[in-house]
Amino acid sequence: MEQKLSASAPIGVFDSGVGGLTVAREIMRQTPNEKIIYFGDTARVPYGSKSKETVTRFSRQIVRFLQTHEVKTIVVACNTASAYALEDLEKEIDIPIIGVVKPGAKAAAQATRNGKIGVIATEATIGSRIYSEYIKKIHPEVTIYGKACPLFVPLVEEGLWEDPVTDEIAKRYLGELIDIDIDTLILGCTHYPLIRSTVARVMGEKVTLVNPAYETARELRSLLEEKGLLNEAPGKLGENKYQFFVSDGAEKFKTFANSIIKYGILSAKVIDIEQY
Amino acid sequence: MEQKLSASAPIGVFDSGVGGLTVAREIMRQTPNEKIIYFGDTARVPYGSKSKETVTRFSRQIVRFLQTHEVKTIVVACNTASAYALEDLEKEIDIPIIGVVKPGAKAAAQATRNGKIGVIATEATIGSRIYSEYIKKIHPEVTIYGKACPLFVPLVEEGLWEDPVTDEIAKRYLGELIDIDIDTLILGCTHYPLIRSTVARVMGEKVTLVNPAYETARELRSLLEEKGLLNEAPGKLGENKYQFFVSDGAEKFKTFANSIIKYGILSAKVIDIEQY
Repeated sequence: MEQKLSASAPIGVFDSGVGGLTVAREIMRQTPNEKIIYFGDTARVPYGSKSKETVTRFSRQIVRFLQTHEVKTIVVACNTASAYALEDLEKEIDIPIIGVVKPGAKAAAQATRNGKIGVIATEATIGSRIYSEYIKKIHPEVTIYGKACPLFVPLVEEGLWEDPVTDEIAKRYLGELIDIDIDTLILGCTHYPLIRSTVARVMGEKVTLVNPAYETARELRSLLEEKGLLNEAPGKLGENKYQFFVSDGAEKFKTFANSIIKYGILSAKVIDIEQY
Repeated sequence: MEQKLSASAPIGVFDSGVGGLTVAREIMRQTPNEKIIYFGDTARVPYGSKSKETVTRFSRQIVRFLQTHEVKTIVVACNTASAYALEDLEKEIDIPIIGVVKPGAKAAAQATRNGKIGVIATEATIGSRIYSEYIKKIHPEVTIYGKACPLFVPLVEEGLWEDPVTDEIAKRYLGELIDIDIDTLILGCTHYPLIRSTVARVMGEKVTLVNPAYETARELRSLLEEKGLLNEAPGKLGENKYQFFVSDGAEKFKTFANSIIKYGILSAKVIDIEQY
């Protein structure tokens, strides 16, 4: 069915909540002509502590919703859903779908010099060992050290991006990765780019930080070019280029989104995702 | 149908996740002969960001599940579900059902001397103004100051019950309540009793802390006595006195439950709550 896809169709992007906005932001930067339909599952967030079965079921509902908007490709802008659900989703739908894990893993495998890569993420992503699996396919002799950082997401959502408390928590979480002497660190959760400078300060200059949001937007661009789906025409003035949907709390989402994306997000619409 | 209820039947207790275990713990302390069927909706946690309709629908499913275990009474050990769903549930079922808000509100109204009561809770509970509503029914001239403390739940779940970071965050959240000179503070989220000593230290000796979990267990005891439903006989040795059910993540639940309840919880069973 791929011949039906139109380059002018939007890209579907989803996450368990607001974190995926860091991915949407990179897509806006790197492919500025693309339209985006963003869905944040704010009623069921967080995914990081839920099982594979539950996350896969939720992701299927979201994919069905995005397809009602005739998206030409889908970006799973959530590490947990990329880890748990992407493989199943790829088999089930007939449009291209990419996650954030593979591009991040690839960039880290290329960046490391001493063969020691750290991954910081939610418990679910670390427990899935998904980054490790992908990195080892590219670079089997590398060692990967995973560290779950459950407080980073609530600290980011509370707005403490630059704060002594976030510094203190970062020092505790990252201490063991410094001791191990990793030279590359993957920001394996879509919230973490927002505290990138704190992480960089704690890790020190010698450690390369890999931002999967950036790498994913790059991969998306290549994919669209390869499939002849890159939107070459800038949107028309007044056109609703970026549309945001959530499963709950539209106002709160809008406020947070406007702190990340500088396009002036005017509205987010609440939909009943369980109907899809 | 109340004549059918047996004093030897278990009590049903439910919450959106692990927080309600502080209520279960108080019930175990104050009515040690009672059997408990606990359900934690860990697949759909948190309830705080969901609408009244959704929380009521979820609560109905849980009540139906608990009734398959022939519970003699139900305790809604969740502030959000108590705020949103209790009134409907009371009309729909023919066994006694109590929530955590009313007992907490009553205790606070009785405790205050200067008429200034603080409530700390999740954003949803504060936004619902439910504590204020109940307190004003008892004591109309009291002023209630609500303060949402979004980082307390993740700090508790990360195990930082006694920690300089939790102290620092508590100082920030509670500073304005100290300035207002409240003399009574309601721990309006079931996680908060686990950081009670931090909150007490920050608030100082003059402020009375009200723990709705404790008040609810007291009210439950009175209710059971009044209805002739108090279980007078200690359980038999080897009997499965406390049973735990969740909608996701049984192992993680068990670990956390064992850090709160000192009875050695051996298992938690995952059930598909959406079937009820």
